[in-house]
Amino acid sequence: MNQEKEQEKRQMMGKQSICFAVAPFLLSAGSIAGKKESEGPLGKLFDVTGQDDLFGAKTWEEAESNMQKEACVLAMGKAKVEPQDVRFLYGGDLLRQGIATSIGVEALQIPMFGLFGACSTSGEALALAAMSVAADYADLSLAVTSSHFGSAEKEFRFPLGYANQRPPSAQWTVTASGAFLVGTKKSHVRITGVTIGKIVDYGLKDSQNMGACMAPAARDTIIQNLSDFKRKPDYYDRIVTGDLGYVGRDILIDLLNERGYDIASRHMDCGMTIFDQKSQDTHAGGSGCGCAAVTLAAYILPKIQKGEWKRVLFVPTGALMSTVSFNEGASVPGIAHAIVLEHV
Amino acid sequence: MNQEKEQEKRQMMGKQSICFAVAPFLLSAGSIAGKKESEGPLGKLFDVTGQDDLFGAKTWEEAESNMQKEACVLAMGKAKVEPQDVRFLYGGDLLRQGIATSIGVEALQIPMFGLFGACSTSGEALALAAMSVAADYADLSLAVTSSHFGSAEKEFRFPLGYANQRPPSAQWTVTASGAFLVGTKKSHVRITGVTIGKIVDYGLKDSQNMGACMAPAARDTIIQNLSDFKRKPDYYDRIVTGDLGYVGRDILIDLLNERGYDIASRHMDCGMTIFDQKSQDTHAGGSGCGCAAVTLAAYILPKIQKGEWKRVLFVPTGALMSTVSFNEGASVPGIAHAIVLEHV
Repeated sequence: MNQEKEQEKRQMMGKQSICFAVAPFLLSAGSIAGKKESEGPLGKLFDVTGQDDLFGAKTWEEAESNMQKEACVLAMGKAKVEPQDVRFLYGGDLLRQGIATSIGVEALQIPMFGLFGACSTSGEALALAAMSVAADYADLSLAVTSSHFGSAEKEFRFPLGYANQRPPSAQWTVTASGAFLVGTKKSHVRITGVTIGKIVDYGLKDSQNMGACMAPAARDTIIQNLSDFKRKPDYYDRIVTGDLGYVGRDILIDLLNERGYDIASRHMDCGMTIFDQKSQDTHAGGSGCGCAAVTLAAYILPKIQKGEWKRVLFVPTGALMSTVSFNEGASVPGIAHAIVLEHV
Repeated sequence: MNQEKEQEKRQMMGKQSICFAVAPFLLSAGSIAGKKESEGPLGKLFDVTGQDDLFGAKTWEEAESNMQKEACVLAMGKAKVEPQDVRFLYGGDLLRQGIATSIGVEALQIPMFGLFGACSTSGEALALAAMSVAADYADLSLAVTSSHFGSAEKEFRFPLGYANQRPPSAQWTVTASGAFLVGTKKSHVRITGVTIGKIVDYGLKDSQNMGACMAPAARDTIIQNLSDFKRKPDYYDRIVTGDLGYVGRDILIDLLNERGYDIASRHMDCGMTIFDQKSQDTHAGGSGCGCAAVTLAAYILPKIQKGEWKRVLFVPTGALMSTVSFNEGASVPGIAHAIVLEHV
């Protein structure tokens, strides 16, 4: 009997996954996006869009902070929850020292964990938020991430005024923030499990081809999820990567085929979904911490809520680099975390 | 009966704390430090010290990565554990995009969560590692953080060759990395609870006086811990802050006195302990993600293990800033997380 209880309690699944004994619910989501995003295929689905990408601020960094705060307020508002009801906030962004998050969420006064997983951070934040609720550490937790084209170009590339040329493999950093409220109250979406990724380094050094840097990590985490949970790809209605873009997606499909997995028919990439590649001149697609977050909030979650998709594996991918590591000739390793979302 | 069970399961304590139903154990710690640290009061206590601060690398960033890997290997070695036995790693550093951690821990191939909480990161990492073990998400988790004087000066201040003047309130970034293995196996140190901090912004803008920026956050978290657990300061043999230094410590003691708490006799600050202020010319004391980590690993933990100190509140403090936020005139908010360590 005691052994049975022990077994029942055990939530470790395979090598890298957690299968929640009592799965938490994804209660609500908030999405806010910029002008270019508002003109894209998902433009009408975002809760709020801005027309000057500044959101009432004077700098892009402050604009990103404002977006994070607003996304959190939107998510809490939809669930009729006040900041003081939320026990923990898990948040991050792409800027050095995660400053968009620190300055953005300060006003909410929620005990917080700062995160960095590059563009995989939305998965990292959702995983930790779900873990804290499922473990009875919190009734309500918030997960929030953001990115901003202006602040990211300044952080990683050149001042915008230089009008530098973008190679075809380059991606367009999405100006957006998505927030998710996870809790014990019932909703139509449950987070039933997570798979935490390892850092995967294929030795690639081209920071203008992040899709290629991240694809091996996406492969690793997707296979690990299927193996840990003893599932086949067709268990999921969609396997959604964060921002591999057109270049990274092709590599992922090939890498998975090499190992005997065919996910092509059920794969979707948020970086390919959020922009219209041809008319919006975004080269290999969208990217950034905000890309997967708002695509999940505005496009994927409603489909799961309605039951149109019953089971989705959400796999945000990150390229772990800084301008210093790049200038010092280091490679760009990738990481990806997987979140299992199920309709109930 | 069911209600009783529910109560028993409930681990949320007060507003911001967790009281673990089954407290995880701190199994082992690894510490590695640089030359200046080896010459300080704790010099002989570190597991490994280097004499050129490069640890076999060509750059300070790579040196910091090597320190993180080595600290993890030391902690695992002491507990006779292999990397594949460790389920999750929680790690971070002070560099932009946490690159010291990403490149440092890649070789260990442990599923990982990247964190950023400035110098509070060792508390954030220990809290999450303990939370994952206590929730039965992991049998073993690693928490690792680092800082490096050279990489931090380059990241936040001036190239070392400029020989810029340091004001008396400035602190000296510690070159060190500390790693902690948390698990279910028994040891003499248990993590019985944690208090997760909020961001506290007093509007200070002087990044050369981080002690003052962080002291209000330390006050907030210490009072919250005492209030959540219904304890008085004398419950703890020591209340240890991370790196407030001489300036920040005085402010903390004053701020706590204002609220009716007197912790002066049992307070200790890692930034004041790790260097000899007079002979080592470190101005207001040590700082950095590695400061609190190695002081805990090399000096505090052995005292708890032996039972010399029975209960310690470990409160690493962080100043949330980047050069961009500083240049844009933003204030420097603080954050602090508290870990309750008890001798068993």
